[in-house]
Amino acid sequence: MTGEPAQDLVDEARGWWRTDLIDISPGEIALRGYPIQELIGTVGFVDAIWLMLRGELPSRAETELFEAALVASVDHGPQAPSIAIARMATTCGVPVNGAMASAINVLGDVHGGPGQQCMELYLEIDAELGRSDEVGEATALVLQRHRDAGVRYFPGFGHRFHPLDPRTPRLLSLVDDAASDGVIDGRFAAIGRAVEDAISAGRAERIPMNVDGVTAIIYCELGLTPELGRGVFILARSVGILAHAVEQMSQGGRIKGPVPKRIGYTYTGPARRPVPHEREP
Amino acid sequence: MTGEPAQDLVDEARGWWRTDLIDISPGEIALRGYPIQELIGTVGFVDAIWLMLRGELPSRAETELFEAALVASVDHGPQAPSIAIARMATTCGVPVNGAMASAINVLGDVHGGPGQQCMELYLEIDAELGRSDEVGEATALVLQRHRDAGVRYFPGFGHRFHPLDPRTPRLLSLVDDAASDGVIDGRFAAIGRAVEDAISAGRAERIPMNVDGVTAIIYCELGLTPELGRGVFILARSVGILAHAVEQMSQGGRIKGPVPKRIGYTYTGPARRPVPHEREP
Amino acid sequence: MTGEPAQDLVDEARGWWRTDLIDISPGEIALRGYPIQELIGTVGFVDAIWLMLRGELPSRAETELFEAALVASVDHGPQAPSIAIARMATTCGVPVNGAMASAINVLGDVHGGPGQQCMELYLEIDAELGRSDEVGEATALVLQRHRDAGVRYFPGFGHRFHPLDPRTPRLLSLVDDAASDGVIDGRFAAIGRAVEDAISAGRAERIPMNVDGVTAIIYCELGLTPELGRGVFILARSVGILAHAVEQMSQGGRIKGPVPKRIGYTYTGPARRPVPHEREP
Amino acid sequence: MTGEPAQDLVDEARGWWRTDLIDISPGEIALRGYPIQELIGTVGFVDAIWLMLRGELPSRAETELFEAALVASVDHGPQAPSIAIARMATTCGVPVNGAMASAINVLGDVHGGPGQQCMELYLEIDAELGRSDEVGEATALVLQRHRDAGVRYFPGFGHRFHPLDPRTPRLLSLVDDAASDGVIDGRFAAIGRAVEDAISAGRAERIPMNVDGVTAIIYCELGLTPELGRGVFILARSVGILAHAVEQMSQGGRIKGPVPKRIGYTYTGPARRPVPHEREP
Repeated sequence: MTGEPAQDLVDEARGWWRTDLIDISPGEIALRGYPIQELIGTVGFVDAIWLMLRGELPSRAETELFEAALVASVDHGPQAPSIAIARMATTCGVPVNGAMASAINVLGDVHGGPGQQCMELYLEIDAELGRSDEVGEATALVLQRHRDAGVRYFPGFGHRFHPLDPRTPRLLSLVDDAASDGVIDGRFAAIGRAVEDAISAGRAERIPMNVDGVTAIIYCELGLTPELGRGVFILARSVGILAHAVEQMSQGGRIKGPVPKRIGYTYTGPARRPVPHEREP
Repeated sequence: MTGEPAQDLVDEARGWWRTDLIDISPGEIALRGYPIQELIGTVGFVDAIWLMLRGELPSRAETELFEAALVASVDHGPQAPSIAIARMATTCGVPVNGAMASAINVLGDVHGGPGQQCMELYLEIDAELGRSDEVGEATALVLQRHRDAGVRYFPGFGHRFHPLDPRTPRLLSLVDDAASDGVIDGRFAAIGRAVEDAISAGRAERIPMNVDGVTAIIYCELGLTPELGRGVFILARSVGILAHAVEQMSQGGRIKGPVPKRIGYTYTGPARRPVPHEREP
Repeated sequence: MTGEPAQDLVDEARGWWRTDLIDISPGEIALRGYPIQELIGTVGFVDAIWLMLRGELPSRAETELFEAALVASVDHGPQAPSIAIARMATTCGVPVNGAMASAINVLGDVHGGPGQQCMELYLEIDAELGRSDEVGEATALVLQRHRDAGVRYFPGFGHRFHPLDPRTPRLLSLVDDAASDGVIDGRFAAIGRAVEDAISAGRAERIPMNVDGVTAIIYCELGLTPELGRGVFILARSVGILAHAVEQMSQGGRIKGPVPKRIGYTYTGPARRPVPHEREP
Repeated sequence: MTGEPAQDLVDEARGWWRTDLIDISPGEIALRGYPIQELIGTVGFVDAIWLMLRGELPSRAETELFEAALVASVDHGPQAPSIAIARMATTCGVPVNGAMASAINVLGDVHGGPGQQCMELYLEIDAELGRSDEVGEATALVLQRHRDAGVRYFPGFGHRFHPLDPRTPRLLSLVDDAASDGVIDGRFAAIGRAVEDAISAGRAERIPMNVDGVTAIIYCELGLTPELGRGVFILARSVGILAHAVEQMSQGGRIKGPVPKRIGYTYTGPARRPVPHEREP
């Protein structure tokens, strides 16, 4: 075999994994071009998250709005399956990485997806705004399209537990401040409010925007993709997941089930029956 | 650059992943040297498990004993954290692969490890038997060594729930039959019984061997390593994990917590307090 | 508080987890009504898988066909991401449960889903057969519907690596035998072949059915849902995942990356740049 | 049944999950006693991490030192198995939660544990300092104890890739500044340096402290437990894991193996052989 084909293969192997994110050589690490030793102690952790996900450093005002959304999402208690899973996992003898993995893994379309889905809805309305003059009109049009497709529940609005999510008004006021200050342009705040108005119209009680609906505004305003929206929610919720895992470790417990053993579960299957000695061939 | 270094790199890359398990070329797949099309329909699934893990096909009697242990381990109900996790995961919008992953992941040292640890104990006693003539003596010596090191609970014996594990006598009788038939030599059955005798001595009630203790006998007799012992337990329990995940999907539920929401959890932290406006620099 | 509400809550808690699968009481375990001690040593592991997933024991002929599909799916080598992940995981100090979890987790829509998606296609054609007389016609109609919706690639046909998947002819001949023997009715075999004919029509080379296409036939014939189809594929592939994890453990290696370090990866991001000392507020 | 036993069961169920972390009631969420709406926009994300893990808000100087360590740990490139796994997972059709879970899961004892293990070493030396007057002496004593137990490699020192880890000097200087300012007392910095001196003594080249060694100093100075040390490393590395997963999504690829297919892997098992038609009973 001559040198050329081998060189081709080496080139292919070198190009197999490509990244804009990090460049490493002996004694050197750079993130997005910035030497790591210059970043350390100069930029904050939230700045570093933004840099990694977006490519450039944020302004201070962007960081502040972004981290308000992260703070809002760190935990929702042991009733959340993700948190319960983290706690159960530690009682099975799994270290924190495993407990966090089993928990983060369930932040799927239903448990971790509403924020992402709400961003997709807002972006669809925003795209419609190019064609329609008015937010309310564009919103009505898009919601009708979803209803025609069978959608009956809009992610980001209403809550199974909180009549009014305490995180929403506070985050919305930060969004409004940032819009006044020109940090963001505020059009996704208008879209979110228009959705709340539209789905609440004609009802005795409003269906208020929840934390997913308002963080979706923030992430859209800041230019994150919906996929990244789910990603940063996971980063935030990982804090609660870790905290609960470690708290459960300190409480102890071995192979802790979901409910006390004296309560147990309900068997609904067939009554006792013998295993047939002869079976159909 | 000349051809040689590139060829060196290609050789290094080709050797980076090495396996005795499977050989694939276009149109051909062989497991442990056997063409896949000859295995299909000729050997059973349990034979294929053994072939992959051990390198050779088992005898029919080995397969039978092995699969008795697998059948014994498929499920232990929704009170087991692994099973509850699989069920909760599906209500979070996670597909079966994710539900199974989050569940299997928690079969750690405590929830999935006792069988493996019991195998290690038996193997330690077996190693001692090279030096000591008698099983009871070797067992006493090894147990004492563990007690001296602070061990108070021996994996594979006693059960938090079953006074007598219904799987144990049946599996033990299959082990005895296999020993009579010369399929296995039976020395790990003797070791397991010696451990039960030793830890029950002087107690009002025996501490009976549980399913981990008896499957550990089977896996040791069949020549599996302790690590593989945990692995095949996971394969078996994956069946129950999958069955529960799919059953929960058919039951429905969204973001189902561990206990009913009306019951909830107990908060034990600090009472409400304001966030300090000034903090220590 | 009077007794009634507490009793209500207890009832709610008892009914929170419900299952047809397993009934446990002290000293007793029954799967689908069968006492575990009667199942052990009487039914095979594949029978137990079927019992858990389907509710009843299979006939011997059903077991044989089912396990042929399982044997066909145990492994596809270290080039498969799932297998590579299992191997890398062990070099990170993760035990087998964790290595298996990280690997099984990636058997998602693309890596683990084609069989399930192919089952959905077959079932859609089968539903159409109620309305249309002829398999070829129903197939053409359904494929056109998918093409109109933008589908260009049909899961279960063609292979990136094998011109002809060696597992397909062997499994198909077992399907035909089972149909001749009246074990299955064979209509999904006809559907699968009709799909292969339809997508190959007018091409220089046929797009042959691959292992996903033929196991989808088997699972549809045996009455599994598509979701269960993915599930049993995962059970089968778990065998290879475990075998590779354990083989890598015996080979050693610490924090083993995907390619040799001397080859590495390609950085495509911005050139070195200083961290700005002043940033936009 | 009278009310009392039911009430007992309800009480047991209510107390089954207990937490100091979060209190939720309709319309209210408090973390460690602080109403969430007061935390949002008032404290930073790193403050919230600290609050959840430690129980109280940090001083600003503590936050700065803590987040310098987090920034230092966000990524180590596609050669790291965790990162490669995140990237491969996305090509298997797994969403970000699943990709992150499979990746985080492998931050086990070897890939995610050195920082934790280094903290344990430092804490052991610190405990010795209660008995011994001098850091060098306590360090020598503890290292000798480990060497006597067969330890030959001390976590936190030396690097397979970087002759000098560029993160170490920068972080150490921040530690020294914080010690001068009285934010921390600096004794773990002295311990870390003493370990470096001791293990480098008599060698031609020093074995320099790496990022695990210096972040272990920071986490010990800040009062984190070793388990939390691993936890916060995982939080930091999750940023890189997410960034790589999303970058791979944008690059595309389906079922992307670890190395180019043309390079493949090396089969080292038995040559082709026929499946035996007769097997030992």
